[in-house]
Parts: sequence; C-alpha cells; structure tokens
Amino acid sequence: MGTYKRGRQSFVPAQPPVIAAWASVAGKKESEGPLAGCFDVTEQDSYFGQKTWEQAEKRMQQLALETLAKKAGLDENGFDLVFSGDLLNQCIGSSFSLRNTGIPHLGLYGACSTMAESLLLSAMAVSGGFFDRVVAMTSSHFASSERQYRFPLGYGGQRTPTAQWTVTGSGAALVVPQGNGPKIEACTVGTVQDLGIKDANNMGAAMAPAALDTICAHFQDTQTSPADFDLIVTGDLGQLGKDLLLRLAEERGVQLGGKIADCGCMVFDNTKQDVHAGGSGCGCSAITLCGRLLGELNSGKLKKILFCGTGALLSPTSTQQGLPIPGVCHAVAISGRSN
Amino acid sequence: MGTYKRGRQSFVPAQPPVIAAWASVAGKKESEGPLAGCFDVTEQDSYFGQKTWEQAEKRMQQLALETLAKKAGLDENGFDLVFSGDLLNQCIGSSFSLRNTGIPHLGLYGACSTMAESLLLSAMAVSGGFFDRVVAMTSSHFASSERQYRFPLGYGGQRTPTAQWTVTGSGAALVVPQGNGPKIEACTVGTVQDLGIKDANNMGAAMAPAALDTICAHFQDTQTSPADFDLIVTGDLGQLGKDLLLRLAEERGVQLGGKIADCGCMVFDNTKQDVHAGGSGCGCSAITLCGRLLGELNSGKLKKILFCGTGALLSPTSTQQGLPIPGVCHAVAISGRSN
Repeated sequence: MGTYKRGRQSFVPAQPPVIAAWASVAGKKESEGPLAGCFDVTEQDSYFGQKTWEQAEKRMQQLALETLAKKAGLDENGFDLVFSGDLLNQCIGSSFSLRNTGIPHLGLYGACSTMAESLLLSAMAVSGGFFDRVVAMTSSHFASSERQYRFPLGYGGQRTPTAQWTVTGSGAALVVPQGNGPKIEACTVGTVQDLGIKDANNMGAAMAPAALDTICAHFQDTQTSPADFDLIVTGDLGQLGKDLLLRLAEERGVQLGGKIADCGCMVFDNTKQDVHAGGSGCGCSAITLCGRLLGELNSGKLKKILFCGTGALLSPTSTQQGLPIPGVCHAVAISGRSN
Repeated sequence: MGTYKRGRQSFVPAQPPVIAAWASVAGKKESEGPLAGCFDVTEQDSYFGQKTWEQAEKRMQQLALETLAKKAGLDENGFDLVFSGDLLNQCIGSSFSLRNTGIPHLGLYGACSTMAESLLLSAMAVSGGFFDRVVAMTSSHFASSERQYRFPLGYGGQRTPTAQWTVTGSGAALVVPQGNGPKIEACTVGTVQDLGIKDANNMGAAMAPAALDTICAHFQDTQTSPADFDLIVTGDLGQLGKDLLLRLAEERGVQLGGKIADCGCMVFDNTKQDVHAGGSGCGCSAITLCGRLLGELNSGKLKKILFCGTGALLSPTSTQQGLPIPGVCHAVAISGRSN
C-alpha cells in the first residue's frame, strides 16, 4: 500500500501514471478557432448525425472513445474503466454513450471541472493498482447547454458581455500504470466555494475564487511553486474570470509568476469569433487538454503544467430559486514525456 | 503499490478499509415504516425547515454529515474527502451541502446507485493510501424527484401500479484505513445495460438486468458465491424489479441461493403505506444501509452482505425524446465486525 497522501487535499503517486493516448472531437466553431488542426475529429453538423443535440453529445463521446481506442492500439473492449460525466441533466451524454459497450463505468458530476476530476480519479485507480487501462472523458455542447441552462436558441436571446460560449466537443485520455507519454505527478481535490455570485451569465466570477484556492492548496500540499510549471491552465474562467483570478491573487499576495492561461481564452479567438468572455463547458478544458496541451507535453514543447478544471455548480433550479453559484476546482500536475 | 485488481470489473483491497461510523436522516413516511427506530435523525417537516424541497435535500445531507462527525468523534473539518451525489439536476443537493465547509469534494452521478458508487470510490481512496477519512454520502427527496422526473405533486397525478416511491432521506458512511467496524472486502464496478425499457414508471425493470450482470461479475471476479453472503441486497428494484431479477436469474441458470433482498422492499410496508412497487431513490439504499444493515453487520447479526446499488440512468429529456432507460449497478461486499 502506497503512502500517497500529501497535505490537506492532495496526493502524489509513488509511480506517476502515464497518459498513454488522448483523443479530441470538436464542433464547427471550435474547428475554426485557434486550435484548428489540433483535433482528431471535427464535425460541421451540430447534430453529429443524430436527431437531438443531447444525442449529439452521446455521439461525440462515442467518437472520442473510438478514436482513443484506435490511437492506443486497443479494441474498445480493452478499456478497464471509464470515469465520465457531462453537463446534461442526469449526465445522459455519458451514460448513453457507454450503453451496452461492456466497459465498467463510474459517473461523475463536477460541472466543467469534469476533465480534471476524471483524470484525478483515473490516476487514483491506476496508481493504486485497482485498474490498468482507465479512461477519463467528458463533453459539452453549445446548443444543449444554452437550452438547459439559459434560453432555447430559437428565442434569439441577447447574450450579456460576461457570457461565455459553451464549447461543443469531447475529450478522452487513457491513463495506464507505465509507458511513454505525459505523467500525472500530483493531484489536488478542490473544496466547494461560494462567494455569493448569483449571475448565471458570469460564471467565470463564480469559479475564480475556487481556482485560486485549489492552486494555492496544490502548491502548499506538494511543496511546489509557479516556477515548477510552464503553465497553470484553468479550465473555463474566460477573460473576465481570469482577470478576477489575477486580481484576487494580487490582493492575497499570491505569486502566480505570470503562468496563468485559461482554456476558455485559448479555444476561441474573440476578435473574430464573437464569443464574448470566452469558451466554457466540460468540453472546453477537455479539447484544449486533449487537442493541444497533451501533445505539447509529449513533444517536449511544454515540460510541466498544472491543469486546473473549474466548475460552476449551479442548476437552473437553484438559479430560479435565487441561490448563488458555488464553484469548485480540481488540479492535476502533468509532466512532459522527457521528465 | 498494491495489486488489487480482480477479473474484469472488480478489486479486492489487500487491507480491507473499515466503515468506522455511519449516519442516517429520514423523512416522515420513512420514519413510519419498518425501519422506524433505526434512523439517527427523523423529520416530520418535508421541507426540513428550508424554503424549497431542493434545499431540504441540501439540509438532509448537512444533517447526515453533522451526525456522522458526532458519531465518529470528529469535528466536521476532520473529514479528508467527501464523495457524494444525488438525483437533482446538476447534483445541487450535494454541492450546496458542502459549500464553504472546506472539505474536499468529488461529485458523482450514478442515479440511485450512488451509495454503492461512493462507498466503492471511498474504498479505493482509503485502501490505496490517498486519503484517510473519506465520506460516502447521498440523498433523495420524494417531492423534488416527483417534480423533476414525473409531475409536480400539485397536479395530483395518478401513480401507476409499477411506480415506486422515492425515499426522502440521506445516508453517510465514514471509511478509514483500519479500526473497528464493518469492512469493505471487495468492490465491482458495473457496466451500463440497456434492454430497451422505456417506461419511466417502471424503473425496477430497467435496473434488474444491470443488477444481475454485476452480481454475476462479482461472483466470477472474486471467486465467491451466494453461499458466502447472508444477503445480496439490491438498492431499489422494488417488488416488480426484484421479481424480474429472480426470473432473469432462473432463465440464465444463475443460482442466487434465496439470498436476494431489496432495500426498496425493506424501507416501506406496502400493506400499510401504499407505495405501490416499493421505495426508490439514492436515499432508499442509503438509509437502509446506514440505518439498518451496517448496524446489523456491526452487531454480528449479519456476517457478510453484497450491497448492490442500482441506478436508472434516465433524464426527463431522454424520456421525452423517446429513448430507453439504461441501468447500472455497482456492488460492494461488506463483512461484519467479527470477520
């Protein structure tokens, strides 16, 4: 039995598990942005050949898993376990994608932090010797999210300047005990932070305090600092949430060393794509990690990143009942192939 | 690093983690049923002093966690990690209950299988040495579930004979590396099964095939049989789902040794409480386990049980879109104190 626990919220695997393969599936708008050319699969049809947007999300996860199996040289039955979740009510993107595949499945709900949450749990399952070939997967879809959280698209509602654009995409990563590929060096589980933000169109502000809290906990628990990382990448704070994170850090005297980047600011080009405050959704950090960052870690372009999945834990019901939006952030430190 | 993996879907901890304490919170109807007197906290007000049923669910989880801390002799800050989830859209019962507590949280969605899923992941986190004092927790509420999945109660809709009654309650269990208490001997992760059942008022039928599949996988992976258990307890198949499970087992030649019991049939007395096919919901297996079964394992009345959390992975959206109901079941083998 390993002794992996570090500090209050973190663990450091004695033998870092390896991300042996990764796959990304992206929609039309994502395929036209700064990450064009990074994705394994892109699709111009927002329905992905399905009858509904919810089923499109199921299809995206199926495509991500099929692509992952191909890239890993496994048949699909070769996966031992899938940790996955999504934003749809009752996570039907995830459960329907895995129907009758015979692959053991544990469902998660971490809102947009799910890519980090699933990676963290995959690291636990693999480095503890419980399962050997574990998949971390998630997805989101612009149209199903708008309908569920805000307004049906057909209303043509005006979006606020603080609004973010939910990414249509899915990412999946295969975690194994050893081999070639980026390594999961340490993980930090976040706590639920609620600072009273009530605007469902300004989720970056709701998540920024949680992001700062988890980043600080990671540094403290693992005795690291921004100098150990090339990038500290938050999931989907967007431009406003990122600015708020930097301001909060300054107010509290936390040094972030100019290392902060945000997937919500990387996935779209706001000067051309009119996404207001940036990208969001489970798919945002998933396709940025599985489309770009893991490749750059594998090629040596990046040496080490702190991947911080951020989640806004609201529901339309809690919003309608006038409640604030709690936020959470889970962090995974990933080193490049050469480390 | 332990080598815990067994077979296709299971793991057996080298040192079985211990369930050191458990707590149950139940509503009015549950406190009038066969388990009356078993619960730590009962409440006659369906709102649990809150403004909405959703917030009542948050309050139930808070009460379960507070009671668990007291029974374990810890302050609430003494928990290292909480795995929890519920049936509400975006699991707001769980995330709101943990707001600003400072306790690390990983959110799950396993529908009514959540008590088993959270126990299984707690066993992984503890026996792998990642965290020391881990809580598995879930809840459900009759009124919030009816409103969300079927009809608002104010409609006075007629319930079908196959319908089950969502339990109002919350259960929480503390898993630690060693000490006194029931032990988690083995765990099996389920696969998502979809046999085409489309009736959202007959969820027992949708879950029964998944239950049988996971029970068989557990026996095969861990080289055990029904003779090793006093009870094989499914989560919330209800009377019809339980009958179907027994019929499916007979058709496939699976021996269950007369050991099957179902929390949905234990929690209410249908001759007096008019619940139709029995109890259901995350809270059903949670309060039966944390109200009765763990106590009986601890006292020696039960030697070993296979606790099988069953989940129907539907959403109102998937139902309205005419899709079938996938089912899942996760199993946790728990031995009594004396073993």
